[in-house]
Amino acid sequence: MSKEIGYQEFSSLRWSEAKQDLQVLDQRVLPFKAEWLSLSTQVDYYQAISDMVVRGAPLIGVTAAYGYAFHLKKTLLDESTDSPITTSKLINTMSELQDYLGRSRPTAVNLQWALNLMHQNLLELLQQGDEPGLINDALFLSPAFKQSITHSLFTRAHLVRDNDVECCRQIGLHGLKLIQSIYNNKKSTVKILTHCNAGALACVSWGTATSPIYHAHQAGIPIEVYVDETRPRNQGAHLTAWELAQAGISHHLIVDNAGGHLMQRGEIDLVIVGSDRTTRTGDVANKIGTYLKALAAYDNQVPFYAALPSSTIDWNLSDGIHQIPIEERSATEVQYTQGQDESGGIVQVRICPHDTPAKNPSFDVTPARLVSGIITERGVAQANEDSLTSLFPELAREVLDK
Amino acid sequence: MSKEIGYQEFSSLRWSEAKQDLQVLDQRVLPFKAEWLSLSTQVDYYQAISDMVVRGAPLIGVTAAYGYAFHLKKTLLDESTDSPITTSKLINTMSELQDYLGRSRPTAVNLQWALNLMHQNLLELLQQGDEPGLINDALFLSPAFKQSITHSLFTRAHLVRDNDVECCRQIGLHGLKLIQSIYNNKKSTVKILTHCNAGALACVSWGTATSPIYHAHQAGIPIEVYVDETRPRNQGAHLTAWELAQAGISHHLIVDNAGGHLMQRGEIDLVIVGSDRTTRTGDVANKIGTYLKALAAYDNQVPFYAALPSSTIDWNLSDGIHQIPIEERSATEVQYTQGQDESGGIVQVRICPHDTPAKNPSFDVTPARLVSGIITERGVAQANEDSLTSLFPELAREVLDK
Repeated sequence: MSKEIGYQEFSSLRWSEAKQDLQVLDQRVLPFKAEWLSLSTQVDYYQAISDMVVRGAPLIGVTAAYGYAFHLKKTLLDESTDSPITTSKLINTMSELQDYLGRSRPTAVNLQWALNLMHQNLLELLQQGDEPGLINDALFLSPAFKQSITHSLFTRAHLVRDNDVECCRQIGLHGLKLIQSIYNNKKSTVKILTHCNAGALACVSWGTATSPIYHAHQAGIPIEVYVDETRPRNQGAHLTAWELAQAGISHHLIVDNAGGHLMQRGEIDLVIVGSDRTTRTGDVANKIGTYLKALAAYDNQVPFYAALPSSTIDWNLSDGIHQIPIEERSATEVQYTQGQDESGGIVQVRICPHDTPAKNPSFDVTPARLVSGIITERGVAQANEDSLTSLFPELAREVLDK
Repeated sequence: MSKEIGYQEFSSLRWSEAKQDLQVLDQRVLPFKAEWLSLSTQVDYYQAISDMVVRGAPLIGVTAAYGYAFHLKKTLLDESTDSPITTSKLINTMSELQDYLGRSRPTAVNLQWALNLMHQNLLELLQQGDEPGLINDALFLSPAFKQSITHSLFTRAHLVRDNDVECCRQIGLHGLKLIQSIYNNKKSTVKILTHCNAGALACVSWGTATSPIYHAHQAGIPIEVYVDETRPRNQGAHLTAWELAQAGISHHLIVDNAGGHLMQRGEIDLVIVGSDRTTRTGDVANKIGTYLKALAAYDNQVPFYAALPSSTIDWNLSDGIHQIPIEERSATEVQYTQGQDESGGIVQVRICPHDTPAKNPSFDVTPARLVSGIITERGVAQANEDSLTSLFPELAREVLDK
């Protein structure tokens, strides 16, 4: 915690060529401890995802991609010379691995997407399998071919990772222009409010909502970030505050109740949030409480932007409030708060009477009418169907053609 | 905690004639323990107010009134027969007590008001002091006169208490009509959201925002209350949830982020909050976060009411956002949360990195345009100057005549 990690070099996971393992920052104990865990069995990968050592849709997807490549390599290495592996047995094994890791967070769309991508890639390579060492009848794999497909799938995992970094970087560059423009008008510190953690810790690097912030800081624009603590899970207090501190960016933690008042008093120039799912019409589903900040921004003429990769746009949906189901999570998240006690222990404390029932809707939908714009990897769209479609015509067409 | 305390008999303080002490519910340890503390020295009274054993403007005022009467009695009892007390010495002593207790919560308007009321009452009684035992020259007090003024000032303290109870009861009866009307239309459970604790625990009994709720429950209307936890101090989770449970009223705790979503989904029929200060034009200053709920209520056509005694209306103010200063409280309230750990201990846990700075504005102002109405002890006013003035013409005139 003492060493300041620059955002340029920050990465929430690292593949170690030397050790042939994936190292991930344990987000369960942040910000109280910054511990890197090494994943070196398939169970490690499963638990890292299921226990929320890693969280955030992009980061889960990248972790799973590495988990797939890792298990492929291990399967081929462990193969005994007495009973060499057949193509069909390899496909079975990897298909089982896909199912196994897929169960680690059943609702995470990126998880299924990444595992499917890796598995399809393997199947294609095996179909193209014309390596000299391949014994065609029994479909045993030659050492050279085994090395080749392992290499290909690690390359693919790196690509999933690098594509995420690049997508986030592009979001940041487009968002930077908005911040630059506010700074050009205001000529003093640009004050930005963000909710939850749509940060580097949810991705590999840069983050989505935080990427414009990191880019503005890098460009030398004076900025100040207000970080909503984001009850019930406190991702703002635990994660966003931590990563902004690592990057040396000036910020203040505030309770979720405070943003409206600060906007009313002219203390906020811009709101940037992430999104878990966005309709083609620009309705934005994001962490519970986002809608309240959008209302306050609208009431005080503060620009309100959602920053998101196009992969979170669901082109099938046109009405977020009626079409997006909202996950109701455990009441204990509301009844308890995690923090660090005097002795340094990480504890859960109950904040209400023993028998108090609680409701815990986890997301809300901000209607497009309250959204000033949507910052994507291809530029800033208005929150409506025409504008989003003109940025991503091929994605929109894919759904409309069905 | 096991015995259910009916709201009809609930009182957050009790004067014991037998023990001649004031018993107050220790609100610092609610809802984890329900402990009554006995106040039997002037230091006890001071600390009960300064340490927030009692909180809420009305309750602080009532406690201070008893503190004054108690100290008067003690001063006259302790008087030695060798050097009987003179009128001027008594006035000095009680004036010092007024200053002393007045410092226990310097910004609490009701505290100064109650102490001043008691002290003026004493001065009037001493001026009228024509008791037979009064030795006019030295102004020594006769035993009968001492007994008489002690009795008068205790009567006055009881009156401060009873007036608060009656005022809250009237607020409840007027608010009940609103709930009854919603129930008549809806014919199913009326769902009410409240923020912070404008409850019986902030007053003597009934509360302000909670009084219509208690009256509706008593009238047999099925109700369900959503209780905002109200970070940073969690008065909703600690106090409102506790007192609703005592009264057997169905409720759910929610995070402050959730109310907007619930309104969007039609889950809330009515919002009732309290107020710390209200302008004559109907702008409502209340616990931070109230404004966000008012915005959501307005956006979803949910009626939003503030319930308050006329004593919180500041007839000098016409623009809440620009004229009401907002107290900035300690950053530690944001950085830490109080709760009960596994072993039953009441602990503070830190929810952010060690060095995270925080901002903590404690109140916000909801502009009158978002307020459906103001529930007072004389009826429900619209949130504007004409309507408030027509309910309280003598109070409005007092200021306008100046």
